[in-house]
Amino acid sequence: MPEPLVVFTPSGRRGRFAPGTTVLDAARQLGVDVDSVCGGRGICGRCQVEVSEGEHAKHGITSTAEHLTPVNDVERAYAVQRELAAGRRLGCTASITGDLVIDVPPESQVYRQVVRKDADAHPIEIDPVVRLHYVEVSQPDMADPSSDLGRLRAALEREWGIAGLACDAHVLAGLQRALRAGDWRVTVAVHDGATITGVWPGLHDVAYGIAFDIGSTTVAGHLCDLHTGEVLASAGEMNPQIRFGEDLMSRVSYVMMNPGAEQQLTKVVRGCLAKLTAELARDAAVDRLDVLEVTLVGNPIMHHLLLGIDPTELGGAPFALAVDEALRLRAADLGLPVHPGARAYVLPCIAGHVGADTAGVILSEGPHLGDEVNLIVDVGTNAEIVLGNRDRLLAASSPTGPAFEGAQISCGQRAAPGAIERVRIDRDTLEPRFSVIGCPAWSDEAGFAGVQVTGVCGSGIIEVVAELHLAGVITTDGTIDGSLAGRSPRIVPDGRTFSYVLHEGRPGITITQNDVRQIQLAKAALHAGCRLLLDRYGIERVNRIRLAGAFGNHIDPVHALVLGLVPDCDPSRVTSAGNAAGTGARIALLNRSARAEIEAVVRRVEKVETAIEPRFQEHFVNAMAIPHDADPYEQLAAVVALPPRRVAEAADGRPRRRRAPSDLPQRSPT
Amino acid sequence: MPEPLVVFTPSGRRGRFAPGTTVLDAARQLGVDVDSVCGGRGICGRCQVEVSEGEHAKHGITSTAEHLTPVNDVERAYAVQRELAAGRRLGCTASITGDLVIDVPPESQVYRQVVRKDADAHPIEIDPVVRLHYVEVSQPDMADPSSDLGRLRAALEREWGIAGLACDAHVLAGLQRALRAGDWRVTVAVHDGATITGVWPGLHDVAYGIAFDIGSTTVAGHLCDLHTGEVLASAGEMNPQIRFGEDLMSRVSYVMMNPGAEQQLTKVVRGCLAKLTAELARDAAVDRLDVLEVTLVGNPIMHHLLLGIDPTELGGAPFALAVDEALRLRAADLGLPVHPGARAYVLPCIAGHVGADTAGVILSEGPHLGDEVNLIVDVGTNAEIVLGNRDRLLAASSPTGPAFEGAQISCGQRAAPGAIERVRIDRDTLEPRFSVIGCPAWSDEAGFAGVQVTGVCGSGIIEVVAELHLAGVITTDGTIDGSLAGRSPRIVPDGRTFSYVLHEGRPGITITQNDVRQIQLAKAALHAGCRLLLDRYGIERVNRIRLAGAFGNHIDPVHALVLGLVPDCDPSRVTSAGNAAGTGARIALLNRSARAEIEAVVRRVEKVETAIEPRFQEHFVNAMAIPHDADPYEQLAAVVALPPRRVAEAADGRPRRRRAPSDLPQRSPT
Repeated sequence: MPEPLVVFTPSGRRGRFAPGTTVLDAARQLGVDVDSVCGGRGICGRCQVEVSEGEHAKHGITSTAEHLTPVNDVERAYAVQRELAAGRRLGCTASITGDLVIDVPPESQVYRQVVRKDADAHPIEIDPVVRLHYVEVSQPDMADPSSDLGRLRAALEREWGIAGLACDAHVLAGLQRALRAGDWRVTVAVHDGATITGVWPGLHDVAYGIAFDIGSTTVAGHLCDLHTGEVLASAGEMNPQIRFGEDLMSRVSYVMMNPGAEQQLTKVVRGCLAKLTAELARDAAVDRLDVLEVTLVGNPIMHHLLLGIDPTELGGAPFALAVDEALRLRAADLGLPVHPGARAYVLPCIAGHVGADTAGVILSEGPHLGDEVNLIVDVGTNAEIVLGNRDRLLAASSPTGPAFEGAQISCGQRAAPGAIERVRIDRDTLEPRFSVIGCPAWSDEAGFAGVQVTGVCGSGIIEVVAELHLAGVITTDGTIDGSLAGRSPRIVPDGRTFSYVLHEGRPGITITQNDVRQIQLAKAALHAGCRLLLDRYGIERVNRIRLAGAFGNHIDPVHALVLGLVPDCDPSRVTSAGNAAGTGARIALLNRSARAEIEAVVRRVEKVETAIEPRFQEHFVNAMAIPHDADPYEQLAAVVALPPRRVAEAADGRPRRRRAPSDLPQRSPT
Repeated sequence: MPEPLVVFTPSGRRGRFAPGTTVLDAARQLGVDVDSVCGGRGICGRCQVEVSEGEHAKHGITSTAEHLTPVNDVERAYAVQRELAAGRRLGCTASITGDLVIDVPPESQVYRQVVRKDADAHPIEIDPVVRLHYVEVSQPDMADPSSDLGRLRAALEREWGIAGLACDAHVLAGLQRALRAGDWRVTVAVHDGATITGVWPGLHDVAYGIAFDIGSTTVAGHLCDLHTGEVLASAGEMNPQIRFGEDLMSRVSYVMMNPGAEQQLTKVVRGCLAKLTAELARDAAVDRLDVLEVTLVGNPIMHHLLLGIDPTELGGAPFALAVDEALRLRAADLGLPVHPGARAYVLPCIAGHVGADTAGVILSEGPHLGDEVNLIVDVGTNAEIVLGNRDRLLAASSPTGPAFEGAQISCGQRAAPGAIERVRIDRDTLEPRFSVIGCPAWSDEAGFAGVQVTGVCGSGIIEVVAELHLAGVITTDGTIDGSLAGRSPRIVPDGRTFSYVLHEGRPGITITQNDVRQIQLAKAALHAGCRLLLDRYGIERVNRIRLAGAFGNHIDPVHALVLGLVPDCDPSRVTSAGNAAGTGARIALLNRSARAEIEAVVRRVEKVETAIEPRFQEHFVNAMAIPHDADPYEQLAAVVALPPRRVAEAADGRPRRRRAPSDLPQRSPT
């Protein structure tokens, strides 16, 4: 009679095993991915499996739970201490007695995948750089003197096949106590298969990581379980560097005028990371000393200031980075109150204006993985633009200025409660409706009464300018058409130009001719940067556009197309990528090979420096006009199902006259 | 006509070179060791050479200074700025025009040898783990964005052939400023051919290191020039841990009774190292930030406390070390106020009682390099004993107790001014003469008048006991012979035993029967440990005995042999090894391959644990007696030239009667 046949799902691997073989041993012999921290001692519970009962015609066997040895004391002890769901068995102790189909649930796999909310995004495969291993260490023997560390190493080699490990100095101070407190059984954290970074008495099976995204305005952190990949807590804090300068360049100026001040800026941002760490640990109800890994992204100036590097060189040509490669540091060296053996991984920068945040965006979006040519735009004070596919990737930064963030706009403000973020203008009456951050109702709805309107944020300003254009108030060359003043009291003279009164409250919100010029300048810079990359790539049109970052997350893709922020593209293929930089940091946190991947990708990215490209200026000038008169909502509605309100709004379009393109504005707005 | 022939001395390498070839290039092509920091730019002056003028019949050439291009502007500029001795040329700029014999003086060699004072010691070859390289870095170019670090790496690869370097994070903060301050010329410190640890603008050609020897009583440091190997300053400080316990075991007890107190002990010893660092830098008139490398030795308890490891486990069986391997740390992690990129190398420990200090002794003494079987003894509270040769090395520690350090002796004291260190007793009159530390005159000389005598130090107690035995006052079994009280008023009753009055001052210095017992116990332990190793090695007698450490440095080898501290050996082959542990630290500081060497040797040392060796007790009991009655000075004087005084003293010997070995003392002294 042949030995029992065992089939593992979902891998499909199968083999025959002598009765008495444990499920874990069988899985290992077949190379089936089954997790274990305790090395098969029945205490970590990571190797839980289920018998898939019934006849499996495909394999010609009948699988039944009775083809495993009965539930034993080890499993009963585990169930009492930790919980073991009905039908679940510990693979390390349940032994094969007959034919079986064994299911390895996702949580028992080491290399499981985490599916992302964004349907367009590829899942993250869990493979953290730090691993926990439980070992039994032999005791010291006077007849054969050896160090505790030596015997710990021997145990790791014997039980886990890991040899030649280095050991952090801080581990030495706690090693002897841990070994004795754990009665010679300890759990060891091994970083990157190379270094012992932590030791705990007994079984210690939790390990967390934090992915940080250091923005000029906001510093965000996501605390993840390194085993499941799950985000347990997310938090954001205002970047405290703001008190040294609202935007990046004013912070650089501050350092230029106050030599040595970079140390202050470094100190406050590290303090902010430390505060976030404590907050995240508290929110997730985990011990901050169980945080063993940290990843960080940020633009080049944030990146340099994080590392204590004076960013002065990034303030002017030739925008030389001190360092662009990925950095592997000790988290403690960044002042993070995490485990003393925790490491910090800083993603690589690409060029003087294209930072580790863009590397994160690339890692998250994966333009280098497919054939489709993607254009990815991350808009801030500078817009970082990435274009390409698996064959070739280009990157550039375009100096959009802070208009998209609401700065340099008369009624502009940062995205915060009270800021107008959505605007619709009636094509006939030229009357506006809008919504503000913090209030679910639109301005013409009952629920809006009493809401304080404080200004217009970046996405609001885009919408109002696009809507004014679609309503014929703003011409293709960007002029507020004063001849319409007779048709609507909202169009009012303002010196030699006209303004549009969006809201008559206190404060009143007015869109001035200069505001429109600022938006034109910003969008022309962005468009020109994109155009330059398309030229360089040798294509006219991209398959897909992804808008990344907070601004990209809130901007309406259709309005962006109307204004010509980005090159033309099928509107249904212009989508938000969410906080792609932060997601990139999270991928690098959860998957060690993602680090090698992004480092290799970054090395082959072709950097395009807009400031020295002669065609940039040409594209910039050409991109000042507003390209679309026809309401693209109609076009879009035919392609994808828009949310009801949007479709309803789009349906109100009326034919609009085409104007001849006028000359570009002669006066450079201040 | 053939190309000019160039012969380099002392290497003897020779070759023909096209006229116009620089001497440095010629040397490099032949693999002749000529130093250079600036890479041949005529600014560091490391490649200085001299023409050996005259007819060199052996080579069939006439060498003359005129066979080099005339002194040029580069050399004149160097001579103005730094000094260039007559006849010296810069190898990087002087070019060959005819036949030459070129002498490369020792200071122009990278791998020069430093001859040690100790004639028995092998020279130290200079090959420091940290090297300085001057490079010209290309400037940033917007058209081809790259980081400053990337271009620095490229320069190091281009000019020095060093690729794939890692870079310390702290270097990044100063990199851009250094490059610009040095007008894109910088000097880089490369550690172990692997990591950039420092960057300075322009040429920076000084690098220092400190070798520390952490003794229980004294912490000593030697500041060395890493280029010349020269010791520029040495300093010692009392180990401030003394306030937690005079000897090792009392410090361990302190930690046992005050959990967490190891942190205090760590803090104070690191503070002491920091203080010594500042002191050494001041004495040597160097900048402490130019100290780039540090090495450390110490016994296992000092080693553990230095590293912040609780030494409790070393206080009792099985004496498990937390870690025994060599450690490579950042000097800053030990709180040393040196260059932030400086590294610290801690030599490996051998066993629970045989520490990094013994590793230093082995490295200094090199028993593993020759065929001769060496016995090396380093006496402190424990005696570390090493026995063997290139084939086999054994090591053990023997619990001598602190008697050799003057403790547990009625008038004992540490070696300090006022302590009796040398003693001679007239074989007829039984009258003593002695000398004290801090006074060059002997007690019977005019210059001694008014000197305050405070006690007897370790070497003094050895001498007085040996001399009393040679004078017949102390019997072979260690009894002070009261029957001689009639012959000398110095022999006085003291309860049921007798004492010997060495000095009738205030305080009076008396050697009691118990003092003799303490010395007997200590020397029996030492002798038994040596004996055990000889047994294990399978030999009866060693070729050579080296006495290491402060005690070994001051002890008179002949008196040591009289008392039987060490096994019998030709007295001329019993010599002091000086501060061999500290010298070992200095070798590891100056020569990178010495580190691999000692690590390999330590791994193959056979550790003998005296506490579990049944024969140890037997040897101990047998070693209580004092073996030699015949004055070995006579024997010794025939072999080697002793210093005049010693020979004169030795000549006063008279035949002494042999006594039958008596029983061992029944009473165990307290």
